[in-house]
Order: sequence, then C-alpha cells, then structure tokens
Amino acid sequence: MIREGRLHRPTSGIAPHFVQANLAILPRDVAFEFLLFCQRNPKPCPVIEVIDAGQVEAALTAPGSDIRTDLSLYRVFKNGELADEPDNLEAHWRDDLVSFLLGCSYSFEYALIANGIDLPHYGTDRNVSMFITNIETTPAGPFSGPMVVSHRWIPQDKVVRAVQATSRFPDTHGAPIHIGNPEAIGIADISTPDLGEIWEPASPDDVPVFWACGVTPQTVAMESKPELMITHSPGHMFITDLNDEDLAVL
Amino acid sequence: MIREGRLHRPTSGIAPHFVQANLAILPRDVAFEFLLFCQRNPKPCPVIEVIDAGQVEAALTAPGSDIRTDLSLYRVFKNGELADEPDNLEAHWRDDLVSFLLGCSYSFEYALIANGIDLPHYGTDRNVSMFITNIETTPAGPFSGPMVVSHRWIPQDKVVRAVQATSRFPDTHGAPIHIGNPEAIGIADISTPDLGEIWEPASPDDVPVFWACGVTPQTVAMESKPELMITHSPGHMFITDLNDEDLAVL
Repeated sequence: MIREGRLHRPTSGIAPHFVQANLAILPRDVAFEFLLFCQRNPKPCPVIEVIDAGQVEAALTAPGSDIRTDLSLYRVFKNGELADEPDNLEAHWRDDLVSFLLGCSYSFEYALIANGIDLPHYGTDRNVSMFITNIETTPAGPFSGPMVVSHRWIPQDKVVRAVQATSRFPDTHGAPIHIGNPEAIGIADISTPDLGEIWEPASPDDVPVFWACGVTPQTVAMESKPELMITHSPGHMFITDLNDEDLAVL
Repeated sequence: MIREGRLHRPTSGIAPHFVQANLAILPRDVAFEFLLFCQRNPKPCPVIEVIDAGQVEAALTAPGSDIRTDLSLYRVFKNGELADEPDNLEAHWRDDLVSFLLGCSYSFEYALIANGIDLPHYGTDRNVSMFITNIETTPAGPFSGPMVVSHRWIPQDKVVRAVQATSRFPDTHGAPIHIGNPEAIGIADISTPDLGEIWEPASPDDVPVFWACGVTPQTVAMESKPELMITHSPGHMFITDLNDEDLAVL
C-alpha cells in the first residue's frame, strides 16, 4: 500500500507486532565508519539490516521490498542541509548508496504495554519527549556527538519490570540508559524537550526513565555533513516482516 | 607478561572472568564487508571491538594494549595459506590493517559451570569438538560458507538451564544453535569432529548441544583467500579488561 501511494501517514499503530525500522542511507565511502559507529554504540544504533551498495531490497528482513519506494516519506540531506522531502527516491537513487535499517522504539514500547505500563502516546500520532544528553557516543571515523534519549514516565512500582521487559530487546534500544535523575545525564529541565513533545507525569510518583534513541545516528551523521544522506521522515518508518519476538534475546 | 614474552601458552584458565577474544586482522579494503558479515551472523561472529586501520590499541576494551604484541602466538596467512606463526606482528604490521576482536566461548562456558554444568575440558589445554554444519551463514561481499559449531555434552536435566545461562551472553555466541539431533544440522557422526577433540558423553542421558563457534569467521575469511589475514593461534587469545558480566544483556 505504501509503495502504491495508498498509505501516506506515519506508521505508528500500523502492522502491530511487526518490527519497524529507522532508515539511514549513506554513500559507500563512509559506510564502514558508519557501521563501525553503530557497532560501538549499539544502544542508540542497533542494526537490523544493512542493504549492500546499489541493492534496494531488504532481503533478510523484508524479502521483496524496495527501499526506494516502501516508505511513505523520505528526507534528503545534502551537506547536512534538508534538500527534499519526497514520497520515493527515484530522483535521488545512486548505485553507491548503502541503506542501514536501525531498530526503533515501537517494539520495546509494545513490550512495556504488554507488561501493564501505559504509554499515552502509543498508537497515536503524538511523539515522546527526546533530549540531547551529556553522554558522549563512542566515535568512529567522522561520526561523533552526544547521545539522544527518549523519555517516558514510568509508575514507580513498574520501573523494575520496565528494565526487564526492554532488556529482552537489545536490537530496539534495549534496557534504559538512565532512571530517575535527568540532571545526571545533562537534562536541565524535563519540561523542555529538545525534540518531540512535552509530557506531564500521570501521577506524582511517576519516575522519569530514559532510553537511547534512534535519532542519535541521524544527528551524528548529519553533524559530519555528508555529501548525501537520506533518512525516513519522522514517524514514517520502514516496516519489516520480522515479528517483535524475533528480536528478543531471551 | 605476554608482551614481554613471559607467558607463552594458551590462555585458557588465565585471568578468569575477564573476557577473552578471537582475533582477525584484515586489510582495510575488505573491512566493511567483513564487519557486515559479522553483523549478519552475530551468533558465530559477535564483535567485541574493532580497532581502526593503522591503530594498535583496543582502546575500548583493553586501554594501553598493543594488538601487535599482546597475544603470545599469531598466525599469518597470505592468499589463504599459512605463511608464518610469529610471537609478535612487528614484521607483518601495516597501516591499512583493521583488527577485529570477536567473542569466544570462555565467558559462556564459565556461565555453564556456574550453573552446575561440568565441562571436562574447561581450564585444561584440551579442546572441545567442532563440526562444520550444513547451516549456511548469510553472505557479505566475498565472505560466505557454512557455520562451524562447537559441541558439548549436557546432562538432560540441565539442558534448559544451559539455554538460559548462555542466552545472557549474545556477545560470546549466546544461546545454542541446536539441541539433540546432530544429523539435523549436517553432522553425520558425532564421534568424528572436523576440528578439536573427541569427547565421550559422561552419561548415556547426556544430550549433544551445539553452539555457534568463533572459528566460523576465520574459516569463511580464509575461503575468500585475502591477500593478508592475521589471526590468533588457536587457544592463544587476546585478553580484555572486560568482565564476563559486562557482556551480559540481562
């Protein structure tokens, strides 16, 4: 449906329990360093699949797919500046492009919900809060910079369960990065997110919990001002054939 | 001690609970494809650290180390043929070499022992049985071929525990690849291993259990006959500063 232009909207809530992925497309000449950056920073940058230079099919996780047409909205950046926001990549495709599919939070969010933890944004078109932290990623080649985290309010009596439930999914950001004290990771004011939306706690006992965020690799790559970089448009993810449980380690 | 030539022996049983690693060194021009091969085959090829081209220090997992001197025995292959087995790499080092440290079985073997599962070879200089299976790895660039597995006899009433205990360590091969039926993975005769040693079951109730083996990436890389490839000599591993538990996902 996305390929035929019949589904032109964010993918949250679509095809529940199938793994969705962030997209980052870069030229082959920086692909090794970018893959190395992901290997060194697996919590913000879990690699679901890498599509070889010039190939367009995610053969391992979505056979029959075409990365140029199977997302409903893309962003094209040239030298770090947004240059286009097209419905498909026909005008931009080159044979030296390597496509990285990176884990996104939808799988682990479902794990939280399955464990009785309410997430008010889940399945809506609203977004979580995201913050740029003082936690430095481990650099690789031209790629370096601070980790971005997503924030969720978790009821105090569910914090342990939230750690357990998300630890099972290291390929979709895994266990939290931090629990409880935003200032400890460089967040001065929990009510002014750097990205996404503001969320109030549902109860005064709710605890702020932070997970590594898939925005990190995009931010870091963009900082290096690559000649060309293509990503999904926020919320318009690539949908794989994997089930969430396929990614569980235990 | 290894660097000074004062410890010239296999590293099994040395520095217990510190993570040891397989070594594979390849020229930069095949490094992306090799890293991609590891990403696509994480059970046989778990990446602990990648040392950038021309660098010699495992800065993340063993600060102060020198990959050219800190293993006690190396193997140097040229075009897929063993060319040298030196104590250090001074005669072979080049600035375009990328070093891959890959997880080895020692960490998960300790997890088995800690769970009351006896491994008769553990801490001795004897080796497990290894088999070339009919399970194909997922190719990347020039790298492809069958998965090699290691074999251990596990008491029937400990098989579930063995799965649980090793699942915690995906970076040291993780959960078993197969339980119970060697023929199902292309092993015709359990008493004739392709590599390593023959082991008899301690009891007729023992179950054959198979884990993905770190010999796989070496075998696969060698098959592609790279102009230069350097590995550790069997049993002479690289010792990191990580503790086994640092690698546990849960």
